[in-house]
Amino acid sequence: MADNARRTDHRYGIRPTMKDVAARAGVGLKTVSRVVNGEPGVTPDTERRVQEAIEALGFRRNDSARVLRKGRTASIGLVLEDLADPFYGPLSRAVEEVARAHGALLINGSSAEDPDREQELALALCARRVDGLIVIPAGTDHRYLEPEIKAGIATVFVDRPAGRIDADVVLSDSFGGAREGVAHLVAHGHRRIGFIGDQPRIHTATERLRGYHAAMEDAGLPVDPAWMSLGPTAPERVRDAVTAMVTGPQPVTALFAGNNRVTVTAVRTLAGHQRPVALVGFDDIELADLLGITVIAQDAAALGRTAAERLFRRLDGFDDAPARVELTPVLIARGSGEIPPHDA
Amino acid sequence: MADNARRTDHRYGIRPTMKDVAARAGVGLKTVSRVVNGEPGVTPDTERRVQEAIEALGFRRNDSARVLRKGRTASIGLVLEDLADPFYGPLSRAVEEVARAHGALLINGSSAEDPDREQELALALCARRVDGLIVIPAGTDHRYLEPEIKAGIATVFVDRPAGRIDADVVLSDSFGGAREGVAHLVAHGHRRIGFIGDQPRIHTATERLRGYHAAMEDAGLPVDPAWMSLGPTAPERVRDAVTAMVTGPQPVTALFAGNNRVTVTAVRTLAGHQRPVALVGFDDIELADLLGITVIAQDAAALGRTAAERLFRRLDGFDDAPARVELTPVLIARGSGEIPPHDA
Repeated sequence: MADNARRTDHRYGIRPTMKDVAARAGVGLKTVSRVVNGEPGVTPDTERRVQEAIEALGFRRNDSARVLRKGRTASIGLVLEDLADPFYGPLSRAVEEVARAHGALLINGSSAEDPDREQELALALCARRVDGLIVIPAGTDHRYLEPEIKAGIATVFVDRPAGRIDADVVLSDSFGGAREGVAHLVAHGHRRIGFIGDQPRIHTATERLRGYHAAMEDAGLPVDPAWMSLGPTAPERVRDAVTAMVTGPQPVTALFAGNNRVTVTAVRTLAGHQRPVALVGFDDIELADLLGITVIAQDAAALGRTAAERLFRRLDGFDDAPARVELTPVLIARGSGEIPPHDA
Repeated sequence: MADNARRTDHRYGIRPTMKDVAARAGVGLKTVSRVVNGEPGVTPDTERRVQEAIEALGFRRNDSARVLRKGRTASIGLVLEDLADPFYGPLSRAVEEVARAHGALLINGSSAEDPDREQELALALCARRVDGLIVIPAGTDHRYLEPEIKAGIATVFVDRPAGRIDADVVLSDSFGGAREGVAHLVAHGHRRIGFIGDQPRIHTATERLRGYHAAMEDAGLPVDPAWMSLGPTAPERVRDAVTAMVTGPQPVTALFAGNNRVTVTAVRTLAGHQRPVALVGFDDIELADLLGITVIAQDAAALGRTAAERLFRRLDGFDDAPARVELTPVLIARGSGEIPPHDA
């Protein structure tokens, strides 16, 4: 028992087993199994001793292993935001690779940026008995998942934080990344810089807007309200925003694009503009190297991998307090962000 | 009854209901429901009459509606080939939009181009009680799905045909598209044209190779074996193939890239090459317009939409023979495919 007692600290990688519980409670393995599975044939006194051992050791039934023993393939669910957004491709694939390494299937679905749809999908995946969930949230209130989490479905949020519940989350530093990107434009001589981002109810959109403001403030530069535009990333909306900013009475000489969808349309719109306008975009894009687009690159695969590894640690019984993991995006200078101001 | 008799032709959009069956058999709705659900309390004679009416009308229980009545959300499964391939983004989203219009959830997974994984995933989705399946096959033998299809899980294949079973399939005309793309290069004066495609066990890869051969033959041009390369689309393999073809003793003056992954690497490799080489790629690519890449564009969204609509028709009781639907890809000339031969 002394050997087991040191396991009460729930350290990562040391998952107490039913055998540990049996040894600590001084009972047989079958008895522990009965208590854990709520089966009859255990006296109240023995049950109490087993429960105390479970609590002292931090033992948690490994549902994933249990499911495998029953002959059903273990699976995890991934709730995406938009199936057609290329940012989520490498993220999904990284999650899938970690799942495969753990012998589990990955099942995906998309909320299409609709909070009701997110809830419906997450609960549908739980009803279909996934062992864990990774969620890119569309909504801002995830209390609907509390009963599922209590019932043992491990849950990790990625890309955006959970709302109103305490859960693991893996994010990129959107604020810091945007601040660095805008500072890069300032360093190249720009003083009138525009920001075009996604809808303001999206966490990453406002975090990047906050980074833009911080960089402008760092440089002592004023911000004209006409230089900020948040809204849907549909091409028409972004095109109009770009056109308004570069042709207005106080035209910007540089733009910061809040995500890959915005960057793509900004590049297309600026290609038809007569004076060169500098551009830095958040998120890398395929072929951006050949087009010379400077970006703040998130590591989408690392986000997915980190979230999935965290999920499987939870499934393996690791029950530390929920944590927030923040990955640092990197600036990749390729030309568009190094264009000097046209009025310099 | 005369009014119902004309429904025996199973025309699309006229789905016989339990009410129709009851009217034709001359029994109550409850009796039909008992027969359909295998419940007791029906005499053999009545059961026979109901069964005859079911057969005459072509009635099929609507599992999707049944599931909805039981309070569980209807769902369809989509087995993808590669989560990170941008070609599948618009396809998945189109499937999801059709599913939403039918009040159903979409659940995805990926085979990662592994036939065992495809089977495991498809069966796991069936076990999780999806109402229908859309499969982008990795394997070439789908007899494993026969029991599921017989059990009422509607199944439609997309992008590549099913193997060894008779099932609905929605494809792009890979042969015709590649033939047109290569003919376009021939029309611009090329006589030495290379083909770089995906692995030869993939249906679309060999169909496009066949299209390449047909176009060369149409033009009376010989094909050097060194001008053909099929294999994994990993960047290193494609880069080496491009380099070998454009620098060999009989260097090609034009390339046909068999899919989007090949095109991306070919564009990068040719960017570092001193003499201009013409290029046409199968599949459109984001930002290809800005880079001037000529492509044979498939309508990925139309593939997904057509497959999903077909699936929901099946779920609505439409039980015509399985069909093969082929969509025609279109050539989009943007510059790279119109470069003349450097030795002209």
